[in-house]
Amino acid sequence: MSTSTRQPRVVVVGAGFGGLRAIQALKNAPVQIIVVDRRNHHTFQPLLYQVATASLSPADIAKPIRSILRGQDNVRAVLMTEALSVDPTEQILHTDAGPIPYDYLVLATGARHSYFGRDDWEPYAPGLKTLEDALEIRRRVLSAFEEAERTEDDTERDRLLTFVVIGGGPTGVELAGALGEISRYTLAREFDRIDPTWARIFLFEAAPRILPSFPESLARKATTYLNQVGVQVRTDTFVTEVDDAGVVAGDRRFEAATVLWAAGVAASGIGKTMDVELDRAGRILVQPDLSIATYPNIFVVGDLAVLDGPDGKPYPGVAQVAMQQGRLAGANIRRRTAGQPAQAFHYQDKGNLATIGRNRAIADIRGFRLAGFGAWLVWLWIHIFFLIGFQNRLRVAFQWAWSYFRFDRGARLITSTGYDRTKEIV
Amino acid sequence: MSTSTRQPRVVVVGAGFGGLRAIQALKNAPVQIIVVDRRNHHTFQPLLYQVATASLSPADIAKPIRSILRGQDNVRAVLMTEALSVDPTEQILHTDAGPIPYDYLVLATGARHSYFGRDDWEPYAPGLKTLEDALEIRRRVLSAFEEAERTEDDTERDRLLTFVVIGGGPTGVELAGALGEISRYTLAREFDRIDPTWARIFLFEAAPRILPSFPESLARKATTYLNQVGVQVRTDTFVTEVDDAGVVAGDRRFEAATVLWAAGVAASGIGKTMDVELDRAGRILVQPDLSIATYPNIFVVGDLAVLDGPDGKPYPGVAQVAMQQGRLAGANIRRRTAGQPAQAFHYQDKGNLATIGRNRAIADIRGFRLAGFGAWLVWLWIHIFFLIGFQNRLRVAFQWAWSYFRFDRGARLITSTGYDRTKEIV
Repeated sequence: MSTSTRQPRVVVVGAGFGGLRAIQALKNAPVQIIVVDRRNHHTFQPLLYQVATASLSPADIAKPIRSILRGQDNVRAVLMTEALSVDPTEQILHTDAGPIPYDYLVLATGARHSYFGRDDWEPYAPGLKTLEDALEIRRRVLSAFEEAERTEDDTERDRLLTFVVIGGGPTGVELAGALGEISRYTLAREFDRIDPTWARIFLFEAAPRILPSFPESLARKATTYLNQVGVQVRTDTFVTEVDDAGVVAGDRRFEAATVLWAAGVAASGIGKTMDVELDRAGRILVQPDLSIATYPNIFVVGDLAVLDGPDGKPYPGVAQVAMQQGRLAGANIRRRTAGQPAQAFHYQDKGNLATIGRNRAIADIRGFRLAGFGAWLVWLWIHIFFLIGFQNRLRVAFQWAWSYFRFDRGARLITSTGYDRTKEIV
Repeated sequence: MSTSTRQPRVVVVGAGFGGLRAIQALKNAPVQIIVVDRRNHHTFQPLLYQVATASLSPADIAKPIRSILRGQDNVRAVLMTEALSVDPTEQILHTDAGPIPYDYLVLATGARHSYFGRDDWEPYAPGLKTLEDALEIRRRVLSAFEEAERTEDDTERDRLLTFVVIGGGPTGVELAGALGEISRYTLAREFDRIDPTWARIFLFEAAPRILPSFPESLARKATTYLNQVGVQVRTDTFVTEVDDAGVVAGDRRFEAATVLWAAGVAASGIGKTMDVELDRAGRILVQPDLSIATYPNIFVVGDLAVLDGPDGKPYPGVAQVAMQQGRLAGANIRRRTAGQPAQAFHYQDKGNLATIGRNRAIADIRGFRLAGFGAWLVWLWIHIFFLIGFQNRLRVAFQWAWSYFRFDRGARLITSTGYDRTKEIV
């Protein structure tokens, strides 16, 4: 039995993959947990591109945070508020709802998009990190086909049917593949004045090849699959300008009504409010046990943290790393409260997956490489498994089965959002 | 075989209940149909209140118009554009995408909210006619509980936990009942600093009783059910002021963060652009065959039309009337093109239903009255039956079953919309 009169208070900022796992790792621990997130829901980010391309609805991949944590008694409050800064000396987290003192702090606020210094590109090229992003992209994509259907101007129609995705990592590849699938399958028979297969989709990547985190053989397969759904992949291509009518890429201008950004991320800004060591992207340097060297009661996990792996390279900003780090941070806090030493982070790379279009994927699982339909089945299974909430799993499984056999997409709605760009879409 | 060289062109404005039924009644008719709607989707309006109260997702109750009409060959184009005006002499519909000439015109643009001359109330008291309305209401309702959870100000907390619904017709009753259900069941265990059952919900109705279209005995039952979920019903109560902090009703001020409007509708504005007879709410007077007396090739159906029934009272603006009128308008156009006389509208009142909270409803079906759980089962069955699209039926049936047995709601997400009211919700 603990002899102290007050249980330690653990404040967790961010209820994404890292934050949630940290909270869950503290289940039944003798602590009081306060959760802070600017949104009321946890989003399963790997499937955001499916909301963006109208396959799934927001509620299929998101769940209210307080609902997820309902059964955990030591979660004392879930506060929907924005974290503003940390005072590590006074041990206070400052938020929009006031100051929150902590004994232990877990920072898991993730990443946001980086436009490489060109923030003026942001309104023209939305990224895909949140549900709002996904709904805005969906609106733009579906609206482009609708406007193309009704316009009389041939040049404008071409521009409306041109889509650009910037960034050849998994997000960009999945977005581009889904756009290809929409134009070649889903909408194929539904328009009268246009043929959706006229859509031209470009994927621009500055590096010599796409998917740098995958072996080259799998990246080549992915390129083939992208071509099969009408995506033109252009590597060694830098985008130097983005405006409201298109982009300049590789010194050529492309008139495109829809430009999507999947090219750069930076850490969320909270690290900058603290007197701690950051890397160039704003990530906080952590020790092997995920705490900050100068403030060992602050743990950082996920995209906000930077830690070198055994190969000397920093761990990538992927869901798996965030989940495993979150779990360790929670476990380490539990150990500390029991007077035990914390443990170092050892990453178990369970593999890498990316899906392209309707039923193709690439999978690199501990050296075992798979491409095509089989990889896609693996992808399906894993994503359903990791979705939070049994109801969501059933719903998504059902939705996917339906969409697959009907060549349809279940969420093809244009509803207005705060980014309203044209007056017709209200 | 027709000897004319060109098939008559039928332009249908609005793909709601009335418009869609008109189009479907023309299946295989020797006409060319152009469909115009400002949105890309058809919404099942009777279930909008469930999107507004986070039970269902938008995609559960809406379907892209071109998807619904996919199998109908004589639908030549679906144009997502706003209808601006009609020139009945030149037989041209003017839209945002240019002029569209017609041989026959079906106007089915429905109704919008009327604030009895106080349009300045609109930002404070959203109505519930479209998916965007529903998402905005959802955002406000869920945010109110979240803000109440994090505020330190007792007075503000009371205001945040006070909800006002203005208008005691079916929409107001269903919204109020759903708010009661949310506070007493769905969110009951999920907050730590507040108890959602502290929520006070007021339903204000200017007439001596709620639900004027139902028999008094059923309206009394509905009031009982509302009370059981914590709704205070105040009849003979006029709302005289609405602002950003609350309302004045019956000469008393109520501080409320969430005010919802279900009290008045007026016809959409297109009638005013034409030289035709309108009633005070902007509805277009039609003949028994649903055409305009002075322009017999223009048909008007649904909430935009006004036609007296056999009892001398105009048909109500309900879904059934719109559907039956739409079907007749389509059939009458078919008859005209075949040189046959049009038929008069005969309304078949299949009954009246309203649901209150979790598992109670009232039903008035051709004089057979039912209240309680049995009525609710009838309500369930009928709404699933009338949902468009087998997939949506399955989805909604599943969602309802899940929510019922788990006391949960499937779409409790706060995602931002164009009405952003507070800066924390981005």
